Amino acid sequence: MFTLITTDNLARRGRYQTPHGTVETPVFMNVATQAAIKGGLSSSDLAAVGCQVALCNTYHLHLRPGEDVIENLGGLHRFMGWNGPMLTDSGGFQVFSLAKLRKITEEGVSFASHVDGRRIFLSPEAAVDIQAKLGSDIQMAFDECVENPAAYEYVKASAERTARWLERCKEQMKRWGGGQDLWGINQGGVYDDLRIVHMKRIAELDLPGYAVGGLAVGEETEVMYHVLDILEEHMPRQKPRYLMGVGTPENIIEAVARGIDFFDCVMPARNARHGHLYTWRGRINLLNERYKDDGRPVDETCGCPLCQNHSRAYLRHLFKAGEVLALRLGVLHNLWFYNSLMTRIRLEIENGTFQAFRAECKGVLDARAVL
Amino acid sequence: MFTLITTDNLARRGRYQTPHGTVETPVFMNVATQAAIKGGLSSSDLAAVGCQVALCNTYHLHLRPGEDVIENLGGLHRFMGWNGPMLTDSGGFQVFSLAKLRKITEEGVSFASHVDGRRIFLSPEAAVDIQAKLGSDIQMAFDECVENPAAYEYVKASAERTARWLERCKEQMKRWGGGQDLWGINQGGVYDDLRIVHMKRIAELDLPGYAVGGLAVGEETEVMYHVLDILEEHMPRQKPRYLMGVGTPENIIEAVARGIDFFDCVMPARNARHGHLYTWRGRINLLNERYKDDGRPVDETCGCPLCQNHSRAYLRHLFKAGEVLALRLGVLHNLWFYNSLMTRIRLEIENGTFQAFRAECKGVLDARAVL
Repeated sequence: MFTLITTDNLARRGRYQTPHGTVETPVFMNVATQAAIKGGLSSSDLAAVGCQVALCNTYHLHLRPGEDVIENLGGLHRFMGWNGPMLTDSGGFQVFSLAKLRKITEEGVSFASHVDGRRIFLSPEAAVDIQAKLGSDIQMAFDECVENPAAYEYVKASAERTARWLERCKEQMKRWGGGQDLWGINQGGVYDDLRIVHMKRIAELDLPGYAVGGLAVGEETEVMYHVLDILEEHMPRQKPRYLMGVGTPENIIEAVARGIDFFDCVMPARNARHGHLYTWRGRINLLNERYKDDGRPVDETCGCPLCQNHSRAYLRHLFKAGEVLALRLGVLHNLWFYNSLMTRIRLEIENGTFQAFRAECKGVLDARAVL
Repeated sequence: MFTLITTDNLARRGRYQTPHGTVETPVFMNVATQAAIKGGLSSSDLAAVGCQVALCNTYHLHLRPGEDVIENLGGLHRFMGWNGPMLTDSGGFQVFSLAKLRKITEEGVSFASHVDGRRIFLSPEAAVDIQAKLGSDIQMAFDECVENPAAYEYVKASAERTARWLERCKEQMKRWGGGQDLWGINQGGVYDDLRIVHMKRIAELDLPGYAVGGLAVGEETEVMYHVLDILEEHMPRQKPRYLMGVGTPENIIEAVARGIDFFDCVMPARNARHGHLYTWRGRINLLNERYKDDGRPVDETCGCPLCQNHSRAYLRHLFKAGEVLALRLGVLHNLWFYNSLMTRIRLEIENGTFQAFRAECKGVLDARAVL
């Protein structure tokens, strides 16, 4: 259940109750695709970087090790050793980004596994059943994610099918014992009318949460912001709102300013693995020769396990020497940064100073910096 | 300084004082070649698995990032964030196992870096200077490690040169301010007379510690044990004895039974990275299909971060899914196992029950097991 605590213009400070604990929003969910954070982080590392919600992928876990294995072992929380709130996506996005030879019908999608080529069929019902077995707190509905831009007629037909699929997901949820929330996903590409019609239609289902999907998949950032702008008044005010797969620190701040509460993105972990580390003064590239003998922490104001214990020079050495510890320390830092950014955003909304904070960050957080 | 506390036949229970703390022996040193444990373990992980001594490699750190960088950053302890006892090897072994186009003279060894082909020269003096800059607690002398078997005449000449090099190391140590102990390394291949003559000669230098090198480099295990047998009475009783690069759990127990106090080996970490995990009932292969849905910990009696938090099924999943977390959890477990084995060995010596323990482990610890 979602509680709206306070607002600052459209920015919202909220709280979402799950069977595994309370989520303070706005929140960035930390991505554990295959029941593990990339870079060698364990579940206790997740807690250490201030993660509130772990996000796992239905598609990946269905392929490997399979939801039955996880269910028999007591569910995904126990399997990965994470006892906090957890969201599973539906596999819709991965089917469209990773799977091969896919064939879409009204019934669902058949495709070849990217792991071993095995033929697999996913449908709204299958996605609900898999996620029920995984036992996450929040299930995402099975949708079709269309790359931007796509032809109007295709997007229209696809969004309508995604709406019908959502109704089937909601129906399928009744077969299970409860304890999980189903969130719907808005689609409609970059077309205002399709987005709004779709949002209105799925809002009628009175689900416990709503996501905006199909963004950050090819369109310009300004187009993404525009879609959020036109959707805002049509998204249920008393339900949490999740912008899927977004984004940079500034993307997140801009989306919070447009009323979004939940985020997830692989970017902080991926950037970390390439030596790009976030600071409050911009993103630095640790592979830069200038850091070779730099004894300072990556960010002197940061409380993460990297900055508390190690220098830039050490981290750079680990990268150059090919030690996987480099990846782990880098990911710990970037996830800590993202989680800290959300803490800061929540505080600024509470204080009514979010707009000033937003202005202050603009052009700084996403920029490459040499510090 | 070494204190011999008690013995059980030839097995010794001792204590070695360093500027960074006391080492209880027999001890297994945990290998952090490039100032990091393979598999993504940080220095705080090292403490968590019960590591007493971290071992770093002169050769690797000389190539990258260079001892001057580390010295300018306050030394190796601070650089890697490990404040406990530390030993650096001299690079002798790596020059002979990794370097290319090497040319040995009385002066030292010139060779091509395995990283970038750069021409490098190492000598007894250079090895001392590099290790002094690194600032470890224990320096190993620069030696030539000869693969077994090698021709008698070559081994004889090489061992004599290594003895002369040791004298030069001892001399070079005087140029530095102290605070580091220099340990000599016995060589002589598989030839009893060469081993004994060499041991007697280097014992006269009255160094704070002695290692046996040039074993586990091609000879049969029984030959290695034989060399330890014939050396034992010639190794100074009041000095610590270090068997370099050894070995399996049973190798270690057998060497302790022959009077050895210090060990190091890459084997536990390497085995872990291939899914081979140690238990008190033998080594299991986590990639085995039978562990796919096994909810038990790898070893129910183990207190390591893996066994306390995760199942065999989860670890197997991480391996199959290619998550680097698999490596980290596996290495944490195997290092914990090795460190626990040493704790147990120390206890058995204290209790005068080491021989029974040794008999109990024989044929068990090194065996492959299906549990």
